[in-house]
Amino acid sequence: MNVVLASASPRRRELMEMLGVENLKILPARGEEIPPEHASGGELVKALALAKAREVAALCAAEDVVIGADTIVWVDEHPFGKPRDREDAARMLRRLSGDCHTVYTGVAVLHGGEEDVEYEESRVWFRELSDEEIARYIATGEPMDKAGAYGAQGRGALLVCAIEGDFFNVMGLPLCRLGQMLRKQGVELL
Amino acid sequence: MNVVLASASPRRRELMEMLGVENLKILPARGEEIPPEHASGGELVKALALAKAREVAALCAAEDVVIGADTIVWVDEHPFGKPRDREDAARMLRRLSGDCHTVYTGVAVLHGGEEDVEYEESRVWFRELSDEEIARYIATGEPMDKAGAYGAQGRGALLVCAIEGDFFNVMGLPLCRLGQMLRKQGVELL
Repeated sequence: MNVVLASASPRRRELMEMLGVENLKILPARGEEIPPEHASGGELVKALALAKAREVAALCAAEDVVIGADTIVWVDEHPFGKPRDREDAARMLRRLSGDCHTVYTGVAVLHGGEEDVEYEESRVWFRELSDEEIARYIATGEPMDKAGAYGAQGRGALLVCAIEGDFFNVMGLPLCRLGQMLRKQGVELL
Repeated sequence: MNVVLASASPRRRELMEMLGVENLKILPARGEEIPPEHASGGELVKALALAKAREVAALCAAEDVVIGADTIVWVDEHPFGKPRDREDAARMLRRLSGDCHTVYTGVAVLHGGEEDVEYEESRVWFRELSDEEIARYIATGEPMDKAGAYGAQGRGALLVCAIEGDFFNVMGLPLCRLGQMLRKQGVELL
């Protein structure tokens, strides 16, 4: 039995390795990058996580446990995905500066025909950022492959003064919840 | 000018490296392991962080920026430091299970005769842990060198369902606050 992570995110891979998951395989889903309209943040990430997990489960053995995940930053009732370019990243970071937003990560665990799909929600507070700081942060390259144009780990730690919820959810994988989901499928991480 | 971290903690060192601090030197303080009586959590970690920073600043050049830090887990109006042995770790983890506690980290930044000492406070929620899970977590070795007998990063991520505050404060160094303190001394991290 393999544990298959249907994600290309290097952060999710690192987190799974940090937990000491045995028989870990990485098989990224192509995924659906365009979010469906009119969904709440939680329903949106659940749908996207499930789509990724189903896409990869179709390529796996029946006994494999397949994990799909999707993370969005939710502001003004709309999702911030990955920035298109540096100007888009600056627009997102200016909006997040000095304010609170919500991060949703959906997680789908597929095993033996069973589909368990859940989501976790965290609130994140940014300190006030100057335009110069935003420009310097973008120049590090860190924002470009991340939902909402920041990483909670890395230099982004200098921007986030507080969170409420699971920190790893903000990084892209709610580990405490995932651990409980995997346990239900017979994968014990502790 | 060097930035001198007066701490032997590998986690603090990793966090400073994650921020890309230039001219980083590690010079661990011997430190004061026995906490003074009758202090609040915040006052206690400030006193311990300042003591560590002063001890190391005495060995440094005047232009160096010296950082001292001390972290405690605070439960029932008392500090949990590092566990003495496995039984002590189990006692701490049983107390933290299914409940909320507070983590304090004091930070002292010393530079050119100036002493800036602050602290950060985070709340941490543990899910309910069975005695078997506690035993398995202790068997990983992770609890033994950590205040409160857990790491917020590593396998400990499976125990912590939510936090309120700065996540890196729980890891031992409140990065957002430290960044602002270092900026006051002319060290720009962003």
